[in-house]
Amino acid sequence: MTTVNAFAASKPGAPLEPFTYELGPIGAHDVDIAVESCGICHSDLSMLDNEWGMTQYPFVPGHEIIGTVKAAGDHVTNLKPGDRVGVGWHAGYCMTCQSCMSGDHNLCGSATGVIVGHHGGFADTVRAQAASAIKLPAKLNAKTAGPLLCGGITVFNPFVQFDISPTANVGVIGIGGLGHLALKFAKAWGCNVTAFTSSDSKKQEAMGFGAHDTINSRDESALQANAGRFDLIISTVNVSLNWDAYINMLKPKGRLHVVGAVLEPIPVGAFSLIMAQRSVSGSPVGSPATIATMLDFAARHGIEPKTEHFAMSNVNKALDHLREGKARYRIVLDRA
Amino acid sequence: MTTVNAFAASKPGAPLEPFTYELGPIGAHDVDIAVESCGICHSDLSMLDNEWGMTQYPFVPGHEIIGTVKAAGDHVTNLKPGDRVGVGWHAGYCMTCQSCMSGDHNLCGSATGVIVGHHGGFADTVRAQAASAIKLPAKLNAKTAGPLLCGGITVFNPFVQFDISPTANVGVIGIGGLGHLALKFAKAWGCNVTAFTSSDSKKQEAMGFGAHDTINSRDESALQANAGRFDLIISTVNVSLNWDAYINMLKPKGRLHVVGAVLEPIPVGAFSLIMAQRSVSGSPVGSPATIATMLDFAARHGIEPKTEHFAMSNVNKALDHLREGKARYRIVLDRA
Repeated sequence: MTTVNAFAASKPGAPLEPFTYELGPIGAHDVDIAVESCGICHSDLSMLDNEWGMTQYPFVPGHEIIGTVKAAGDHVTNLKPGDRVGVGWHAGYCMTCQSCMSGDHNLCGSATGVIVGHHGGFADTVRAQAASAIKLPAKLNAKTAGPLLCGGITVFNPFVQFDISPTANVGVIGIGGLGHLALKFAKAWGCNVTAFTSSDSKKQEAMGFGAHDTINSRDESALQANAGRFDLIISTVNVSLNWDAYINMLKPKGRLHVVGAVLEPIPVGAFSLIMAQRSVSGSPVGSPATIATMLDFAARHGIEPKTEHFAMSNVNKALDHLREGKARYRIVLDRA
Repeated sequence: MTTVNAFAASKPGAPLEPFTYELGPIGAHDVDIAVESCGICHSDLSMLDNEWGMTQYPFVPGHEIIGTVKAAGDHVTNLKPGDRVGVGWHAGYCMTCQSCMSGDHNLCGSATGVIVGHHGGFADTVRAQAASAIKLPAKLNAKTAGPLLCGGITVFNPFVQFDISPTANVGVIGIGGLGHLALKFAKAWGCNVTAFTSSDSKKQEAMGFGAHDTINSRDESALQANAGRFDLIISTVNVSLNWDAYINMLKPKGRLHVVGAVLEPIPVGAFSLIMAQRSVSGSPVGSPATIATMLDFAARHGIEPKTEHFAMSNVNKALDHLREGKARYRIVLDRA
């Protein structure tokens, strides 16, 4: 038996408090991970507040986990104690469905979420299926790597899934935790990169992250002036936009890809899709293989999330900072 | 000078009346085509009624044209008098924009529509750029081929554009002029084919066109029971549906592709796209190269539109038949 020291909310929106729970004997395919740090994703807040109606309390957030394997089940072959790994949204997959067998574990209908009916990474220990724990490249800066495991893979995955060409014009809507990483990845991918932001203060920073230019997302005439420009626009925001204007900014065969979980339906004009063979699509995180590919790519290109650090014991202060929209651009909770 | 004997409407919704107009000297890249037959597409009605606000009167409908080249401009190299050709939605392309130069002439922003600011195929003669007139394979039945040039290519093109696998589960919404051809193409493509229809009388016919099964599109429980089943659903209808239910019937990575010009926006739930990496897309007709490919495919597989024939002089009776929803499944106007 392993006692885990975690931070949990007892009900929707409640502050986190110290919480301990016991892990039973380790499963044959599982690893126990000593948590070193854990990023905070906006979905931790959504789950904490039970916005999606699937939160179980006591709720331990945290799914951008960096740590070291301290125990491995009998059938684990890909990891051993001492390995430094990352764990993102998923703590396990069924491993046998059509999606898993096709390498699309992130689309497995029976996957286990790290923070969905499972205790997350705001803790000293996390247990996960070894398949969902990805070994970090030695060159990667482990201290800032946590946010790559959810925020990073979510915006990296579309480039892989849709075989985006380095010749593409790529726009990124929302320059926050996900968006700033999208800019960095798109730049390293070789693309022509544009940041959509309504924040003057973020404009210059967006250029620093890799944008070649910026467009004020609140300036309708600027949106119209860029009609037909983009091969790919990635939306990381979870609020409704003038979607028509964004679809209209797509080239023939262009794609508006949403990774931000906006609750209100996106009204899509059939004519606008038909006339220029456009697509609107979405995707969640990425498969273990794609996460590994991303970590290698990030290490090779020196891509790091821009992070702010709080001690994990200061988790409530960190959550307040995120709630206030002040995170620049991703918060990481450090243990010790 | 060539005098063209055509049928034209003088104002929105008006009956067609005999109408003559003069063609000036033939352009260097144009051909004049002696019309043998012309299919009637629902978009001929939409244009006749000026539903899309871009109709010019007198309006000569008709863009599913089969005929024989009777004159060719000086620079025409791909056709000669006597060649039997088909002309669809487009009567010409700019030939130099990025889309044209990439083989996507159907996405050319400066393309000339056969019935948009141009007189169509309800006539004895039509002029078109030689690049937009596609030579018919000798094996193809010219008498029924007209509807392939717009209805056919519109539903064939997605299979080419999205590299649909013969292993795919394909659903077709709306078993009409386009839908019945979609079933035939999908069957010949090797796919598992499902027809969505609310018409009992069309069920058996859909099976005859190539469907392996049918689903009643008005039976919500049947739609729910087929959740996660389809790789591709092609919608040929121009009315709003329970789009959520159709998107929910897509497999992970599945695509809802609209070719029916529904005017009301399609409300797309971001979560539904994100969780299963789904896409919603649209496309118009196809490029000349894809039309040629389709005609070869149709000839090889013996794919023919199921047609009803009217003499061209009976055009108003034929249009009424279509307006009443009685076309089974595509009307062709025959000359002589």
